[in-house]
Amino acid sequence: MCELLAMSANTPTDLCFSFTGLTRRGGETGPHKDGWGVAFYEGKGVRCFHDAGASASSRIAEVVQTHPIKSEVAICHIRQANVGAVSLANTHPFTRELWGRYWVFAHNGQLSGFSPQPGFYEPVGDTDSEALFCDMLNHLRRHCDRHAATEDVIRQLVQLAGSYARRGVFNLLLSNGDWLFTYCSTKMACITRRAPFGPARLKDADMVVDFESETTPDDIVSVIVTEPLTSDEIWDIYRPGEWRLWRRGEVVMAQAPTE
Amino acid sequence: MCELLAMSANTPTDLCFSFTGLTRRGGETGPHKDGWGVAFYEGKGVRCFHDAGASASSRIAEVVQTHPIKSEVAICHIRQANVGAVSLANTHPFTRELWGRYWVFAHNGQLSGFSPQPGFYEPVGDTDSEALFCDMLNHLRRHCDRHAATEDVIRQLVQLAGSYARRGVFNLLLSNGDWLFTYCSTKMACITRRAPFGPARLKDADMVVDFESETTPDDIVSVIVTEPLTSDEIWDIYRPGEWRLWRRGEVVMAQAPTE
Repeated sequence: MCELLAMSANTPTDLCFSFTGLTRRGGETGPHKDGWGVAFYEGKGVRCFHDAGASASSRIAEVVQTHPIKSEVAICHIRQANVGAVSLANTHPFTRELWGRYWVFAHNGQLSGFSPQPGFYEPVGDTDSEALFCDMLNHLRRHCDRHAATEDVIRQLVQLAGSYARRGVFNLLLSNGDWLFTYCSTKMACITRRAPFGPARLKDADMVVDFESETTPDDIVSVIVTEPLTSDEIWDIYRPGEWRLWRRGEVVMAQAPTE
Repeated sequence: MCELLAMSANTPTDLCFSFTGLTRRGGETGPHKDGWGVAFYEGKGVRCFHDAGASASSRIAEVVQTHPIKSEVAICHIRQANVGAVSLANTHPFTRELWGRYWVFAHNGQLSGFSPQPGFYEPVGDTDSEALFCDMLNHLRRHCDRHAATEDVIRQLVQLAGSYARRGVFNLLLSNGDWLFTYCSTKMACITRRAPFGPARLKDADMVVDFESETTPDDIVSVIVTEPLTSDEIWDIYRPGEWRLWRRGEVVMAQAPTE
């Protein structure tokens, strides 16, 4: 399996702290050593870093840990390969352009017997994840247009995510640079940090940050992960089937399954 | 204007030497300080680095200079903005997926009054370069299919490049990871290094490399640029209107305009 990390913020914010914690799990405190990647939106542009090796010992991951790249939406993934060889083409997150925006996708899980409909977008590598991403974008192109309301796009995504989750494990991070859609099939947690900010300690590295010294009182920064990254904060746990749409650090649409 | 750099090799080869020379021109020995980017193919995957600042003082460019990333095809660009603001979305090279492959594009020049046909691929930023790239891929999708012979694809690209070059300056690097297409509208030079290898000295940095110590006798490595990067080698200068298709370090198709 793999682990996911995303950030949604109302001001450009770096991911150094969370990224440092997550990437230790790529070969050091965790087994996800078969590649890692991260995408940072900057305006409509997106900046990606990928490596097919272990993040815990990657020179490029070290630069991303220590060189603050500021973004309002970021998506990160560390991989433990199941479907598809260890290779750059199989390394999340994946990016495609749709309606003049870059869409970025990362996935944790595995589906059995998924065979996508032919469509415009095609996978380059051979993971089921990238095939699912292409399937989602092909579906959106067929059922929405570029002027569709966000609510309509999200309704389509929720239906699709639900149909995938019925066939396996499908924990999803998807962004178009404006919003961040998160879907929990089995495992996801989040935290929103806002004033008054306090310190936080990573579980996976000997690192404490005092967010108060790094933020302004108006900042709202949310982090969404597979497994909580800090040992001294309360994380909000998604329920299976729950989804949340984040924008500028806050949940703007959400639904948890009824009991 | 901008400067281009590409590499085609018959074995995975790093770009550290040429990249170091080119990136000095991004704010130090040259004025191209409005962003830089580089794409390295690894198998069918592609690894990109982009920055909207000056390459000569970029921490990420420094990592790419010193951390050998081995590739058979690489494309690099340093930007001096004319059309489009300085931003990540306007920073070359641009990437799109077509027929299950990543296509990478970088361009030097400017076209007057270019308005692309609507199509599937759309620019995210506001450079004429990215609009041209989308126009080329939309054209290929309309006129070829995924099983088209390389000759047919190249014939389409040559026609398109010629039509763009009649409307302005259009020096082009384009790859699908298998081959590298280069078109010279005004300025391009290349060099092919093979055994017996010798030393070479950069024009823009105090750096000499002895290729013999870094290669095997079977290696063939070609570098294509806007302006020669070394002071002690003979570069082959393209003529305006000339194009060459490179594969695994060698020219496999080419045409120079008749006198």
